Amino acid sequence: MVRRTRYLRKIPLAEAQAVFFSALEEAGFFQAAEEEVAVQAALGRVTSQPVHARIPCPHFRSAAMDGIAVRSEDTFGARGDAPKFIPRESFRYIDTGDPLPDPYDAVVMIEQVNEVEGGVEIYEPVFPGKHVREIGEDFPQGALVLPAGRRLRPEGIAACLATGNPTVWVKRKPRGLFIPTGSELVPPEADWGVGKVPETNSQLFLGYVEEWGGEAHASPIVPDRLEEIRGAVVAALEEGYDFIAISAGTSKGREDFTAAIVAELGRVLVHGVGIAPGKPVLLGLLDGVPVLGLPGYPVAAWIALVKFLKPALERYFGCPAPPAPTVQGTLTHRIHSSLGTREFVRVRLERKADKVLVHPLPGGSSRLSSLTGADGIVEVPEEVEGYPKGAEVTVELLPR
Amino acid sequence: MVRRTRYLRKIPLAEAQAVFFSALEEAGFFQAAEEEVAVQAALGRVTSQPVHARIPCPHFRSAAMDGIAVRSEDTFGARGDAPKFIPRESFRYIDTGDPLPDPYDAVVMIEQVNEVEGGVEIYEPVFPGKHVREIGEDFPQGALVLPAGRRLRPEGIAACLATGNPTVWVKRKPRGLFIPTGSELVPPEADWGVGKVPETNSQLFLGYVEEWGGEAHASPIVPDRLEEIRGAVVAALEEGYDFIAISAGTSKGREDFTAAIVAELGRVLVHGVGIAPGKPVLLGLLDGVPVLGLPGYPVAAWIALVKFLKPALERYFGCPAPPAPTVQGTLTHRIHSSLGTREFVRVRLERKADKVLVHPLPGGSSRLSSLTGADGIVEVPEEVEGYPKGAEVTVELLPR
Repeated sequence: MVRRTRYLRKIPLAEAQAVFFSALEEAGFFQAAEEEVAVQAALGRVTSQPVHARIPCPHFRSAAMDGIAVRSEDTFGARGDAPKFIPRESFRYIDTGDPLPDPYDAVVMIEQVNEVEGGVEIYEPVFPGKHVREIGEDFPQGALVLPAGRRLRPEGIAACLATGNPTVWVKRKPRGLFIPTGSELVPPEADWGVGKVPETNSQLFLGYVEEWGGEAHASPIVPDRLEEIRGAVVAALEEGYDFIAISAGTSKGREDFTAAIVAELGRVLVHGVGIAPGKPVLLGLLDGVPVLGLPGYPVAAWIALVKFLKPALERYFGCPAPPAPTVQGTLTHRIHSSLGTREFVRVRLERKADKVLVHPLPGGSSRLSSLTGADGIVEVPEEVEGYPKGAEVTVELLPR
Repeated sequence: MVRRTRYLRKIPLAEAQAVFFSALEEAGFFQAAEEEVAVQAALGRVTSQPVHARIPCPHFRSAAMDGIAVRSEDTFGARGDAPKFIPRESFRYIDTGDPLPDPYDAVVMIEQVNEVEGGVEIYEPVFPGKHVREIGEDFPQGALVLPAGRRLRPEGIAACLATGNPTVWVKRKPRGLFIPTGSELVPPEADWGVGKVPETNSQLFLGYVEEWGGEAHASPIVPDRLEEIRGAVVAALEEGYDFIAISAGTSKGREDFTAAIVAELGRVLVHGVGIAPGKPVLLGLLDGVPVLGLPGYPVAAWIALVKFLKPALERYFGCPAPPAPTVQGTLTHRIHSSLGTREFVRVRLERKADKVLVHPLPGGSSRLSSLTGADGIVEVPEEVEGYPKGAEVTVELLPR
């Protein structure tokens, strides 16, 4: 018998994050598993082990300029007014990139070579190694090519290949499952009658989890029945997903199902956070697997993902994203916010000659248009009741 | 007979970009072709046509709260000290999201309903539409969901699906081919002997072109013979690639091949730009197809791609990337730069308690390590000969 206790209450965002992340830490979620992959298929993946040069780069001595390969000692003493003659048998013409053969140890640029009968004259001495690309001057053998915890960029892939590393060890992509629940939901490709709602919140999960480095899946829609939702969650655990999001509607009955199921199968860590949108979010652990109970309204679900799942995945990879760019601007309308709630106001920006106007977008957390039409977010902290029209505010820009 | 004219000279970066982009404009490169794709497969693609709501969202009236559906007129006059009685047959219990049936036009929150014999009492009037989600309040029928030229984010995909748009028109990914040339090159998976160099510059092209929204391919390595390189270029044009990069070595002979082939088959726009690394870059047009002759040293090739191909693709998509984030810091060593050359110095950052130290990385454009180990770039403009140790400089951060 599942208890139907409702313990939805509001705790501050920072506290909810601390509770969630420390439970994840304890459960070992941040100890990423690793796998070996072909480096050419590893763009965007994060190294789990440092990469060292198995082969030095470059792996042979070569000319860094077009010119002649010489023994540097043959050039010592050359001066503009007293050129040194080098006979034909004592140097070799060489092009950039060509191996520097023994016994030569330097290159004289072709522009500084004067061809004469039986050889060349040069006007300046060169030291050993002049215009020579030495073995390992880019990466000596054994040198660190990439540290652990580095996201692979194209130049990193090139560097691995150039140092004899056709494969690299990377952190495994954590696999997440989105479970949409709700008897009113239908797949977007179905016909929608009155009372039927296309299920689109999974798109937020699928898109953002991929962007944050995970592998995202969505289960079929589960009707609003406790047994069926519990069955879907148990199946997800059996299938070995690394994290689970249960997308509840906003009705209380349904919220209760999620909380009750998580309490029955594992542990509810947080139910209710002082954020708007996003207040009814639920955070839990099932057999060490993080579970998010997402609000049904899309903007609330988005905030919950951004504030809880994104930082969890950043800690998993050990690769935090740089802070979002911000701009300062002037509010064109007042913003109201409740004390004790951290409010995330979607805003549109309008750039005027000498300033940036910040227009708060109308509508609550049910409106996707307040997200698709937003240029950024103004955050109103818990201890602030809002900002008056004309206030200077900081806007965190959304990616476009 | 191919002319072997060498017209490598140095023109300023801004001039080279202007020449290249205006030739591309004239050739129609920026008039992106479009294609219709399933919106669920369109994450990161750029809309070529605006998306409008075919179905309003929401598409039916529903309760925004749990409570009772009422005719608002039945509540008029209710007061705390004079509650209004509504008989059982004149209201309906309703949950959030349920369709609001006729003839009801408002919802009274369940918390404000007092159940009594034969019906309910309420203590406050509600106006028509109270706690009702109206049809189209997120997106009215016909409303703009996404403008043309917008990169699709997860919430945009959800919004398209929620408004009856299972497909969208997007700009076709331009297809680019990288042609590696050089008899010394071998595939990285081959055995490298002395004199053989693993071909890794293609990784820069493949990775960055994908990141910038294109579709990137690399041809097999072409030996250093004019006929074979010309053949590869002609084949690429026949295969309909939208842009081509010919990766030359740094030797003069090879540079000449590229310039000569581009001059023979089409038009050399620029050969030689006042940038370091990257000076020997070549820009041309073949049958309206942009061609880049890339320097062989990897950092030079990277700069050429970033300064010419990236902005060209941004203009193709009509979706410029936001400027890279920057930090200010203090140089720990002097930087020297030639007058007339725009120098891109790779630097490593060290954050001290009260300042950021900027360490220029050693080595020239041949060293991938100066890119994989860099946190950012310091740009030295043409008219500046460098910066002394201790100078405050702006560092453009590289993505990590």
